[in-house]
Amino acid sequence: MIRFGIIGTNWISRDFVEAIKRNPKCEVGAIYSRKEETALEFQKDCGVGGKVFTDLEEMGKSSDIDAVYIASPNSLHGEQTTIFLLNKKHIICEKPITTDLEIFDRNIKIAEKNKVVYMEAMKTTFLPNMKVLKENLHRLGDIRNVVFNFSQYSSRYDLLKNGELTNVFDTKFHGGSSFDLGIYPLYVTLDLFGEPLSFTARNYLVESGVDGTGTMILTYSDKIVTIIHSKITQTFVPNEILGEKGSILIDDVSKMRSIKLILRDGTSEELTVEQDSNQMVYELDEFLNLIENGELESKVNTFKNSRKSVEILSRVRFKI
Amino acid sequence: MIRFGIIGTNWISRDFVEAIKRNPKCEVGAIYSRKEETALEFQKDCGVGGKVFTDLEEMGKSSDIDAVYIASPNSLHGEQTTIFLLNKKHIICEKPITTDLEIFDRNIKIAEKNKVVYMEAMKTTFLPNMKVLKENLHRLGDIRNVVFNFSQYSSRYDLLKNGELTNVFDTKFHGGSSFDLGIYPLYVTLDLFGEPLSFTARNYLVESGVDGTGTMILTYSDKIVTIIHSKITQTFVPNEILGEKGSILIDDVSKMRSIKLILRDGTSEELTVEQDSNQMVYELDEFLNLIENGELESKVNTFKNSRKSVEILSRVRFKI
Repeated sequence: MIRFGIIGTNWISRDFVEAIKRNPKCEVGAIYSRKEETALEFQKDCGVGGKVFTDLEEMGKSSDIDAVYIASPNSLHGEQTTIFLLNKKHIICEKPITTDLEIFDRNIKIAEKNKVVYMEAMKTTFLPNMKVLKENLHRLGDIRNVVFNFSQYSSRYDLLKNGELTNVFDTKFHGGSSFDLGIYPLYVTLDLFGEPLSFTARNYLVESGVDGTGTMILTYSDKIVTIIHSKITQTFVPNEILGEKGSILIDDVSKMRSIKLILRDGTSEELTVEQDSNQMVYELDEFLNLIENGELESKVNTFKNSRKSVEILSRVRFKI
Repeated sequence: MIRFGIIGTNWISRDFVEAIKRNPKCEVGAIYSRKEETALEFQKDCGVGGKVFTDLEEMGKSSDIDAVYIASPNSLHGEQTTIFLLNKKHIICEKPITTDLEIFDRNIKIAEKNKVVYMEAMKTTFLPNMKVLKENLHRLGDIRNVVFNFSQYSSRYDLLKNGELTNVFDTKFHGGSSFDLGIYPLYVTLDLFGEPLSFTARNYLVESGVDGTGTMILTYSDKIVTIIHSKITQTFVPNEILGEKGSILIDDVSKMRSIKLILRDGTSEELTVEQDSNQMVYELDEFLNLIENGELESKVNTFKNSRKSVEILSRVRFKI
């Protein structure tokens, strides 16, 4: 039985706790919040027990947990991970796994030395429809251009315009569209096509100083991948992978709820398979299997892909 | 009565001659082709008369024409224009108006000196649905990102793969996706939003050496415009202009046959108006009006926009 410590008490942690509750191999062992009251409320809402911590170092030393799920503000991911890796806890950390390459490399070394799993909680790559996508890519012939657009209007942008600065728009917490949304299509791109030869990007910065929207171009020897992302507009068009023989359309590049093949002659085929409504169950499965099998690194969310994603995003997010 | 000389005998010239035939203010005065036989066949097919020329200098000196429509391969546009401007003929030249800024600037000077019209035959900016688009842009609130994708598979790419090099894939004639297709969304962008602060691009070059597909990013102080274009894949998604309040979807950024507004709350409105099936009638109208009014430059397809478009395209088309 893997006992999880949970860092962060927002909606994403609630979803992850729901996934834990449904999996017989694990349970919640502890909750961290800066305020005890918030943690207790979270436990009550989620219907889970376990210890409550308001001090991370103390939580790290606790024998009540074997693994930690981290869903704090972006800028804290790397350092918080270090605390728990040093205490030999397995780590599944929300994307971005860090915002700093040096910290990431240090964390990998500690994880390897302490023989614990270290994995980015990028859920998309484990989705059944991602598998369907991979299995059907060859039907497009040579893939020449890819257009991913993850533009999702954030209600917190309304708050920002009313003078209230939240974490996702705060430079201090490494907020902004690249790290929050751009990372999904970027990670999918790295998983599908590997490391690009080069990359460039342009962004529009909102008044708080983070990128509200931006475009990245990833160059490969045989194709161009374009990634548009935005927290201040809402797209109504699907994502598209364009090959010489046809296209695959994806409704949402993070959730992959619908996958459709269209060939150049106009014939189309629905490829979508059913997915669990809680999309985190798949990444949780992967993480628990790694622990069970004594593997330290996911073969899907690899250190290499996480590292490349951090490298690209940390270099492009302010580039205007 | 404006008598047109026609340079080029492919499908695009046929469409333009059809537009001429329907307009009582003008007629075909002459046809140029390197081979007399081709010109005669063209006249027969189109049901028009006029002189036949196989020598451009001779055609330039002819008193049988007042204006010239140029639809030769891209690399010839600039120099052919010069010949006719020097002979005080009005010029409407297919896009790109030139592929060389120095030639363009020289041509403008000659046109101004000789008091003749010089206009790029970029039809899109004169379409009724372009007017509808402009009238409704304000409903989107602040526009923050724009994604134009003009990916249209060329049957000549099949020829190229079978070893046959046609003009549009020939570096010698300045073929490739940027000048052939990318110019439409680029020109629309310049018309809608003016000159960008900066631009960058990445391309995939096909074996003949021209760009088969590419992405341009245009940076503005308040938005990012992304242009994807391809002659070797076919898109199945609409173009989108994304504002803070909603989006406008455009089926095809060159033909603008459908314009739809979708607000963030999901409400949508069809904005499309009917357009003539021959989309060249509108640019022809503009051109004839300029001649009639003694104006030398279109207020829509301005020298400035044509110049910026040539500048950007000539700098980005090989950039990989």
